[in-house]
Amino acid sequence: MATLGLIEYGDASPEVKAVYDDIMTTRNTDWINNFWKALASDPVTLRRTWESVKQIMAPGALDAVTKEMVYLAISASNQCGYCIASHTAAARKAGMTDAQFAELMAVIGMANETNRLASGYQVEIDERFRT
Amino acid sequence: MATLGLIEYGDASPEVKAVYDDIMTTRNTDWINNFWKALASDPVTLRRTWESVKQIMAPGALDAVTKEMVYLAISASNQCGYCIASHTAAARKAGMTDAQFAELMAVIGMANETNRLASGYQVEIDERFRT
Amino acid sequence: MATLGLIEYGDASPEVKAVYDDIMTTRNTDWINNFWKALASDPVTLRRTWESVKQIMAPGALDAVTKEMVYLAISASNQCGYCIASHTAAARKAGMTDAQFAELMAVIGMANETNRLASGYQVEIDERFRT
Amino acid sequence: MATLGLIEYGDASPEVKAVYDDIMTTRNTDWINNFWKALASDPVTLRRTWESVKQIMAPGALDAVTKEMVYLAISASNQCGYCIASHTAAARKAGMTDAQFAELMAVIGMANETNRLASGYQVEIDERFRT
Amino acid sequence: MATLGLIEYGDASPEVKAVYDDIMTTRNTDWINNFWKALASDPVTLRRTWESVKQIMAPGALDAVTKEMVYLAISASNQCGYCIASHTAAARKAGMTDAQFAELMAVIGMANETNRLASGYQVEIDERFRT
Amino acid sequence: MATLGLIEYGDASPEVKAVYDDIMTTRNTDWINNFWKALASDPVTLRRTWESVKQIMAPGALDAVTKEMVYLAISASNQCGYCIASHTAAARKAGMTDAQFAELMAVIGMANETNRLASGYQVEIDERFRT
Repeated sequence: MATLGLIEYGDASPEVKAVYDDIMTTRNTDWINNFWKALASDPVTLRRTWESVKQIMAPGALDAVTKEMVYLAISASNQCGYCIASHTAAARKAGMTDAQFAELMAVIGMANETNRLASGYQVEIDERFRT
Repeated sequence: MATLGLIEYGDASPEVKAVYDDIMTTRNTDWINNFWKALASDPVTLRRTWESVKQIMAPGALDAVTKEMVYLAISASNQCGYCIASHTAAARKAGMTDAQFAELMAVIGMANETNRLASGYQVEIDERFRT
Repeated sequence: MATLGLIEYGDASPEVKAVYDDIMTTRNTDWINNFWKALASDPVTLRRTWESVKQIMAPGALDAVTKEMVYLAISASNQCGYCIASHTAAARKAGMTDAQFAELMAVIGMANETNRLASGYQVEIDERFRT
Repeated sequence: MATLGLIEYGDASPEVKAVYDDIMTTRNTDWINNFWKALASDPVTLRRTWESVKQIMAPGALDAVTKEMVYLAISASNQCGYCIASHTAAARKAGMTDAQFAELMAVIGMANETNRLASGYQVEIDERFRT
Repeated sequence: MATLGLIEYGDASPEVKAVYDDIMTTRNTDWINNFWKALASDPVTLRRTWESVKQIMAPGALDAVTKEMVYLAISASNQCGYCIASHTAAARKAGMTDAQFAELMAVIGMANETNRLASGYQVEIDERFRT
Repeated sequence: MATLGLIEYGDASPEVKAVYDDIMTTRNTDWINNFWKALASDPVTLRRTWESVKQIMAPGALDAVTKEMVYLAISASNQCGYCIASHTAAARKAGMTDAQFAELMAVIGMANETNRLASGYQVEIDERFRT
């Protein structure tokens, strides 16, 4: 169970409700996932985290699906079960196909492998990469 | 210094040279970075790793620059100095702009933050995400 | 199920019982949590680990609740489910309030974010920090 | 070298200068460390990150030195060289003594050890910790 | 549930069946564990991953049980639940005793502890280790 | 520079000297590496850490070189530069050949890859692995 519990919409204070409403509007959905309900016990963190996510995940130089796939990549690499589940759903909603998912996983796996080969072999950074 | 040393092209065995040649041809470049020179002490690992990287990083359902940005994202998240340097260079060569780099970093940072909030608050996976 | 099983007090050898007794006395409690029951299959590791934990977690230059919050912070950052659950309980027992928990989580999240921004942007250590 | 370079105060745009000024005022210091100069290439991330750090690190339910020690704990656990250097300095400025530093490191080390024992032994979460 | 589902032998394409057959023959077993059934949705990744695992885990300069214990060590350190469960089984099948498991866990725990002490104390690499 | 400095043998207190002497005797060497000199600012941690390392790394159900290779594996996976350098030296002193090093690195890389594939694909633990 979430450490500080989950705050449902009907039980939320006006400031929490305002964040919930903005989440639902921004994401064009009618529900709130547990992550936000857990953070809602700390309305300051709830608002700051949501505002940051909203700003960072909006399409910009990178489109929405690329951002969601990167988010999923980090979550899979960090082995965060909740985050893998929620960002797989988010990436799919943003347009990720099964084929893209499979290629994404292959890149994540490979990067985690060569990261350790590079450090384990104590490879020095090439001069060309330093400038 | 790399644990088993770096093998330069001129000192390489024919099987290592063959991999080096394929790397330079595939990447349309005339040099080999230290990572491969370090792996070359183990020609079997050199070949297997290169063949895997070549297969995985080729454009498919995801384009080359997206794959390089994901690779960089994992490397930054894992704090692998060599990999960050080399894949920043690779992502730029594949077309990553400074604006894309900056947005990529923002997503990586955010994902690492919320990954810990999700686990620290012990948030349960929503039913909707399980199916 | 724990790889080597859980050893209950009634089934424990005298050397394991001695550790269990010391845990209960030191913590002023009447039960043993699964972590110790799992380690008990290796009495040498059980004793060494408990002696280290006992020594490290005793109040000193840092008080008990600060130490428990740091322990929880590392566990949340490492995404260790068992450790998050047990050290949330321990930190609360040592006096951590819900407000402190929430601020702790915010710091953990922020540190994980900026750790990746620092490495991803390849920021060099300032001269002032080196001395 | 920082990927997008470091922006010095004299070369900064008004919006970047405003953040730099707020950092120096808030921290009661007359210089800016490289982390912020590196982020300054992306003024939106610079501002958001600073506003978050400022809000999170202000004394609240936890005092400033405890927060800085937790920040250092995460950075040491994640092996982020830059962050360890900068937050060791920050924690000391906030009042951390050498004795506190040493105890902090002992807790970090112990937590990282038992995190792996708990997962490696596949220890199940005790019923008492679930509620 | 696995993101792309699990492909059972009876439902597999000829190329997937060929990999499954090779897994069962190489491992001298009559079943396929979920990891491979999950990867089977991407036959290219299934084949490449299996060929790599087969090559890397074959006895060579290191024997099979040592390799399986290292695999388990990394999995425990990374806190990957699936991998800990599957490689504990694999290491036991290769001959790991309970006493070896317990010593392995102790080494993993210790290494994770001193890794953080080394980085947290900002210990410089000795000249003797550099050459 | 090490946060609390390095304590040389000639400047050490009797209790620190006693640990240094035991390290040199146990390892059959005439010098102390920086890790211990850094910990020496906290004699309690110095002694506890050394006693634990001495106990854990002594040959038992696993021989010395296997233990050193596992230590190196964890250090490479965690990307701890100091630890990789020192435990590469220690493993070689214990008898690790270049061929064993290369195979060890290959296993580490592979484990880090499949750890992320298992979590990223959300693979459920097989029933057979649960008992």
